[in-house]
Amino acid sequence: MKSELPKVLHPIAGRPMVQHVVDAAGALSPANTVIVYGHGGDRVREAVTGERLQWAEQAEQLGTGHAVAQALPHLDEDVVLVLYGDVPLIRPETLRRFVGRVNDQSLALMTLELDDPSGYGRVVRDDQGRVTRIVEQKDASDEEKRLREINTGILACTRRFLNDSLPRLSNRNAQGEYYLTDLIAMAVDAGMEIAVDQPDHPWEVDGVNDRVQLSRLERVYQGVRAEALMREGVTVLDPARLDIRGQADVASDVTLDVNVILEGRVSIGPGCRIGAHCVIRDADLGAGVVVEPHSIIDGATVGDHCQVGPFARLRPGTELAAKARIGNFVETKKSSIGEGSKVNHLTYIGDSRVGKDVNVGAGTITCNYDGANKFQTVLKDGVFIGSNSSLVAPVTVGENATVGAGSVITKDVPGNGLAVARGQQRNIENWPRPTKK
Amino acid sequence: MKSELPKVLHPIAGRPMVQHVVDAAGALSPANTVIVYGHGGDRVREAVTGERLQWAEQAEQLGTGHAVAQALPHLDEDVVLVLYGDVPLIRPETLRRFVGRVNDQSLALMTLELDDPSGYGRVVRDDQGRVTRIVEQKDASDEEKRLREINTGILACTRRFLNDSLPRLSNRNAQGEYYLTDLIAMAVDAGMEIAVDQPDHPWEVDGVNDRVQLSRLERVYQGVRAEALMREGVTVLDPARLDIRGQADVASDVTLDVNVILEGRVSIGPGCRIGAHCVIRDADLGAGVVVEPHSIIDGATVGDHCQVGPFARLRPGTELAAKARIGNFVETKKSSIGEGSKVNHLTYIGDSRVGKDVNVGAGTITCNYDGANKFQTVLKDGVFIGSNSSLVAPVTVGENATVGAGSVITKDVPGNGLAVARGQQRNIENWPRPTKK
Amino acid sequence: MKSELPKVLHPIAGRPMVQHVVDAAGALSPANTVIVYGHGGDRVREAVTGERLQWAEQAEQLGTGHAVAQALPHLDEDVVLVLYGDVPLIRPETLRRFVGRVNDQSLALMTLELDDPSGYGRVVRDDQGRVTRIVEQKDASDEEKRLREINTGILACTRRFLNDSLPRLSNRNAQGEYYLTDLIAMAVDAGMEIAVDQPDHPWEVDGVNDRVQLSRLERVYQGVRAEALMREGVTVLDPARLDIRGQADVASDVTLDVNVILEGRVSIGPGCRIGAHCVIRDADLGAGVVVEPHSIIDGATVGDHCQVGPFARLRPGTELAAKARIGNFVETKKSSIGEGSKVNHLTYIGDSRVGKDVNVGAGTITCNYDGANKFQTVLKDGVFIGSNSSLVAPVTVGENATVGAGSVITKDVPGNGLAVARGQQRNIENWPRPTKK
Repeated sequence: MKSELPKVLHPIAGRPMVQHVVDAAGALSPANTVIVYGHGGDRVREAVTGERLQWAEQAEQLGTGHAVAQALPHLDEDVVLVLYGDVPLIRPETLRRFVGRVNDQSLALMTLELDDPSGYGRVVRDDQGRVTRIVEQKDASDEEKRLREINTGILACTRRFLNDSLPRLSNRNAQGEYYLTDLIAMAVDAGMEIAVDQPDHPWEVDGVNDRVQLSRLERVYQGVRAEALMREGVTVLDPARLDIRGQADVASDVTLDVNVILEGRVSIGPGCRIGAHCVIRDADLGAGVVVEPHSIIDGATVGDHCQVGPFARLRPGTELAAKARIGNFVETKKSSIGEGSKVNHLTYIGDSRVGKDVNVGAGTITCNYDGANKFQTVLKDGVFIGSNSSLVAPVTVGENATVGAGSVITKDVPGNGLAVARGQQRNIENWPRPTKK
Repeated sequence: MKSELPKVLHPIAGRPMVQHVVDAAGALSPANTVIVYGHGGDRVREAVTGERLQWAEQAEQLGTGHAVAQALPHLDEDVVLVLYGDVPLIRPETLRRFVGRVNDQSLALMTLELDDPSGYGRVVRDDQGRVTRIVEQKDASDEEKRLREINTGILACTRRFLNDSLPRLSNRNAQGEYYLTDLIAMAVDAGMEIAVDQPDHPWEVDGVNDRVQLSRLERVYQGVRAEALMREGVTVLDPARLDIRGQADVASDVTLDVNVILEGRVSIGPGCRIGAHCVIRDADLGAGVVVEPHSIIDGATVGDHCQVGPFARLRPGTELAAKARIGNFVETKKSSIGEGSKVNHLTYIGDSRVGKDVNVGAGTITCNYDGANKFQTVLKDGVFIGSNSSLVAPVTVGENATVGAGSVITKDVPGNGLAVARGQQRNIENWPRPTKK
Repeated sequence: MKSELPKVLHPIAGRPMVQHVVDAAGALSPANTVIVYGHGGDRVREAVTGERLQWAEQAEQLGTGHAVAQALPHLDEDVVLVLYGDVPLIRPETLRRFVGRVNDQSLALMTLELDDPSGYGRVVRDDQGRVTRIVEQKDASDEEKRLREINTGILACTRRFLNDSLPRLSNRNAQGEYYLTDLIAMAVDAGMEIAVDQPDHPWEVDGVNDRVQLSRLERVYQGVRAEALMREGVTVLDPARLDIRGQADVASDVTLDVNVILEGRVSIGPGCRIGAHCVIRDADLGAGVVVEPHSIIDGATVGDHCQVGPFARLRPGTELAAKARIGNFVETKKSSIGEGSKVNHLTYIGDSRVGKDVNVGAGTITCNYDGANKFQTVLKDGVFIGSNSSLVAPVTVGENATVGAGSVITKDVPGNGLAVARGQQRNIENWPRPTKK
């Protein structure tokens, strides 16, 4: 990976690869999940979360069999499933079926048919089609090299079988490593069945060894997410240009235009239209919201039938009541905007409570910060703020009050009143324009 | 579709699927076009437009033959072409050729060769290659199942033949429906030729039953539009990242960078460069216009050699004369901007007439709205508006006049004059800064 | 191409096709490179740069052999490599190997195996596999038409051989042209070996005759650039949505989100994250910089651990010291911003020197232009500029000084002082709101 980040922490859809694997395993509700870590393990331990996780250090890299042996003392479940932190897209549905193949007399092996199997260990079967062994590429006969079924490395068996077999693994091979693959031959020798299963999609068992492969699986994953949304009744204008990084709860008859990114926990109500090039992160959108192109909604709640954007940025703590309207080049932060209120142009609203039916003119700035502290601006119902005004917090503009354009408001404005705070205009006739020096 | 919207109203490139079909049919200038509607028909009737449209209700869903029978009384043309509202991308060129195959002794049938025909009705031919009948998947022999030519459902025949045949359709089948397909056998029985034609592109006869298929046809359609533009001399930096939703008249030597969206009626003159991530909607751009990335032009006219953006938004009613310049974080609306004038930064220009060679400084706001009415701002030729000014409409700044930075202009400014309207600066020495509370 | 631009000047990744070819040739450090030009040659001469370039005019278009004959008198190198201005993606690695095949007894010919070779000249070989001649499609026998190895037109030979052979080319053919291809037969007749080589990638010898082909090679090129970055340790979230137009020096553990465009000379330090939809042009970014989505950085230097965007625009001459922060709807130009300083919202900073730990409030505008001249604004270390202020340059705000919100600052502010310049607020009770006229 040419990276300072441990390989398994490289993200797919913003989530570390190993977290995908832990989550897939967790979906089977196992007694516990043991993660074997080696180099960079501290960073992995910090990054990965899940229920009933346990950690086993593999201090020396002595092979996959050795790795599983480190986990063995921590395993609580009778059936053990071996997964890989760099094979991130294995699906719980596939694993559930796979694990179901295991019993006292069978070991389950995940295989794959490849058009070009070169480099992989081949699955050798006898005349009855029973798996007899795995042969590695370098040891394979010409005939075996023509076999197209390969070993993915994913297997499941009883803990009892692992207890019996792992101690008997040998490292007498070219690499001097303990290979988990050797369990297959042991199981065959013990008269057990090798129960073979294949994933529904080949990409479920694709591994990541470099960033080219990482980007391929990123796109596979995004394609799967996009298709799932479409099957649920979401219109996606270009599935190849949608990115979902987290949990997206999108209602039916939502339209997602091109290049939308959904991050974190996002919920979008029925009938919303999300314009092109928008980023929605950790946000709740009600029904019928229209988000115009080039908008960013982050950590905000947006009420039914609001209109946002284009070029709007809602920052964390923004709460829009129904039918509010946030327009272009407007930033909001830690503020509530009441029903039907409009903040349409070139405005910063921070630390504010804005009532219903308020109109905030273009270029208005809430001056919420004195360099040390933040203060609140309150605009009550029906307020009209003239354009290019500065509202120096803490300040309250009373119900139905008006602020004249270009004013710097430093004191509260009474309800139904008018506040003006600007210089007197002086006109000078025949003024000589500056000239180019 | 999992939708409240009738299926045929789901859009491809912003236009309902059925509208695509109506438009393709309309391109053949038929005496009339009859649309058979069922569930949700009112919404369909409201949404679809075209010349010489007629509507026929199919109250019960009794099959395709029954549907055509509802249309029959309304048909004015001697030759009848049967199309489907969920098969949106059929091309007029294909239809013209197809309809030309029909005469008193022939029925035209649109077929397709598929690698995997399973599920479709197969076209059965005799030794001479003449079509004898259509056999549905469930009724097909093993040999017939190997046939790869399928019935697309699109057919054309004389109205007279329909008059004769439709009443003879039977619904004695598993579904209890009247199948249009049965016309084929009737035509063969009557000694007519089945004139087979195939579309130039398989996607012309692709149907849409879910949003995954909808998105596929959206991308096919967009690919076709992009290629057509390229063949006309337009450079498209990534055809997979261009969306055209409407009528786009783009001159030669225009460059469209990635992720451009053209919506509605757009015309772009020769030599224009449209930057990445721009949205152009219902707009006319002259020659040599440069639109920098992240701009939105909507309902505007842009003169030759203007520069727009980045991050500019021209709203409806904006008219830029030649060589005008609209810069970043600038919004214009219902305003004309004269030749060579510049509005470069963080400005809102609404309901304004701006003359030639005007310079509007950064942060200027036209205060065009008093909460109830909109008023006009007039900046005559050669005006210079200092930065961060507020122009409280109605107001006129005379020719070559200057407004000092930070002014709130409420009264007209005489030509060649200077207007200043701001507070006097007071400096207070050694002022104790606020501290963190 | 349907263009006013000569074909070879149409760009791939922002660089004229012929410049790609000249650069590939130049990578072999030849004694000189001779460009044969015809129609539109002046524009080509102006556009193309390189070392030891020479120009040969081909006044009449008499064929490829004739074109090379025009170059012959100018050639300084003993071995001559013939390339084409509309075959832009040939790689230096391929050319180096190819030219190495040439000696006094051999001519090197670049060929390609095609699944569908129709239309191309086929490479005919004898029983021993030796190339004997090229046969054009129209002259090929049925057997020859089945040959899948085609002539790409790229060849290399000694200058001496060209000197001997070119004068002997004949134009006695249907087109009346002198064909370079005829050199093959001459070389065979002279007992020379035809040393055949094939490019590593078929797209290296793809030619461009229309904008559809141009766009295909643009995407091929971009795919190659993206993969190269990934191999160097850069995470690319979607290789199909990355555009690199120029020289990009991107360190390891940089993440490039979707739809990033890198133009000109860009360097990005380790650990940077570049958000979606960003354009970076001619810029240097230090380590750990975070650029939020929808930002444009052009001609700027960005120090370590700065945060930029979203919706920020850094224009040429911007220099951000470490840990500076430029936020949304902020434009900077010809300005330095000191370490840890923040310009977070809706601001224009032009022609300014901003010190360390400065806070520039939302909506601040440096009024740097009087309509004729530009002036400088200086904000010393620790300055706090209240929101919506106008700083009328030339002006200096002294160390740790404060400017009150909404002020128009026209005179210098002393260090540690406070400057306020705004109108006095007047509140009017029970003010009758304007009503709809």
